[in-house]
Amino acid sequence: MLRNFKILIEYDGKAYHGWQRQKNEATIQGEIEWAIEKMIGQKVPLIGSGRTDAGVHALNQVANFKCDTHLTPGVFQKGLTAILPADIVIKSCEEVPEGFHARFDVKSKTYLYRILNHKRPSAIGRHYAWHIPFRLDVELMACALEYFVGTHDFKAFEGAGSPRQHTVRTVKKAALIPRKNKILHIEIKANGFLRHMVRNIVGALVAVGSGRLTPEQLNTVFLSRDRRLAPPTAPPQGLFLGQVSY
Amino acid sequence: MLRNFKILIEYDGKAYHGWQRQKNEATIQGEIEWAIEKMIGQKVPLIGSGRTDAGVHALNQVANFKCDTHLTPGVFQKGLTAILPADIVIKSCEEVPEGFHARFDVKSKTYLYRILNHKRPSAIGRHYAWHIPFRLDVELMACALEYFVGTHDFKAFEGAGSPRQHTVRTVKKAALIPRKNKILHIEIKANGFLRHMVRNIVGALVAVGSGRLTPEQLNTVFLSRDRRLAPPTAPPQGLFLGQVSY
Repeated sequence: MLRNFKILIEYDGKAYHGWQRQKNEATIQGEIEWAIEKMIGQKVPLIGSGRTDAGVHALNQVANFKCDTHLTPGVFQKGLTAILPADIVIKSCEEVPEGFHARFDVKSKTYLYRILNHKRPSAIGRHYAWHIPFRLDVELMACALEYFVGTHDFKAFEGAGSPRQHTVRTVKKAALIPRKNKILHIEIKANGFLRHMVRNIVGALVAVGSGRLTPEQLNTVFLSRDRRLAPPTAPPQGLFLGQVSY
Repeated sequence: MLRNFKILIEYDGKAYHGWQRQKNEATIQGEIEWAIEKMIGQKVPLIGSGRTDAGVHALNQVANFKCDTHLTPGVFQKGLTAILPADIVIKSCEEVPEGFHARFDVKSKTYLYRILNHKRPSAIGRHYAWHIPFRLDVELMACALEYFVGTHDFKAFEGAGSPRQHTVRTVKKAALIPRKNKILHIEIKANGFLRHMVRNIVGALVAVGSGRLTPEQLNTVFLSRDRRLAPPTAPPQGLFLGQVSY
């Protein structure tokens, strides 16, 4: 009988070509599928809550896989973590009903983006933030972030490459939180995200915060549904998949 | 006329064979001397406040170098940071009196050691802490840390390889601070440190915290002046040179 296992995964995306399995590149999905195969002796597909791009991190990615096994969830959690490289950690494993699907059942996701806003770069932790050396107007950015909350067509903030049929998404919550050591946290919760959507929103916020784009111009970009009018995409190393809710 | 420049350096030690220049290995001193040479067109020796071992980080290492130049301290700070790899950052540069010597003039140093005390390892930030998966008795460790405060012969906590004539040092302050996300900070300030001294103290504290060594046995180790009786050395990735005072 097939059992269904749900796993919670933390990863440092720096060394990987993103989540999705690829033939000749190291990916998170590929590494975990290989580790599962080592434990149960057969290949089974791992279903993630969604892809993350090359270099993007996750604090709590969710995935599920089905197999016929006598191994307990606790054995999978410890065994997979032991087999996997140190930059991928299985935080928990639980058995879930047969019908659970890590992608189809997602209700919402929360992403976190970290900016280091200081004139000097940082050596320690440089792989976990986007360094912006010029002063950002944080209040103006917080104001601009409000534009994104609610149900909108996010076409102007969709990356090229894998366009979706529908580009309407609902941002349920968005917050800009100054933390210590010149770090800014941008947290965005939505029912779903288009490709590069968080990084494109952050790129636009930084354009506003640095005075290159007024909030009114941002609104025009939004309504244009034209990616070419929007500011550049923020780099991947500041982005973390925070929570996936079901 | 020779001018004397003092620099403050942050580095991620992961990729380096420690501070000290070596013929065929990448070191922090070697990288910075090379960057200075690129800026002024000649080789000058860089004097650090002291060595750090392979894999050890620094938040505020101090060094000085002398040269005949018209460049301003601000130009050195920006220029060296731009030339250096991203894991070495020059935080500041100032001109100091001719007599200033980054090693001889040290009054005290503060080191920080980070422990992640959680059953699971962490993927994010794994290069900046020692992961201890079993429960540590933090109160007992804080108690044991008191043994090290004051003027003592630290011979039992000196690493092999570069023994000093005198092994008496004065620990001025020591604190164990639980931080969020299961992180413990151990901070030790002393007038000087023997080789591996902080990592050997942390190794001993973890032995106490895990019940492998009683505080009384620790005292016996201390008095024995015998490294072979002491618990193993903590790994380098949790250690940060915090502050150097003059």
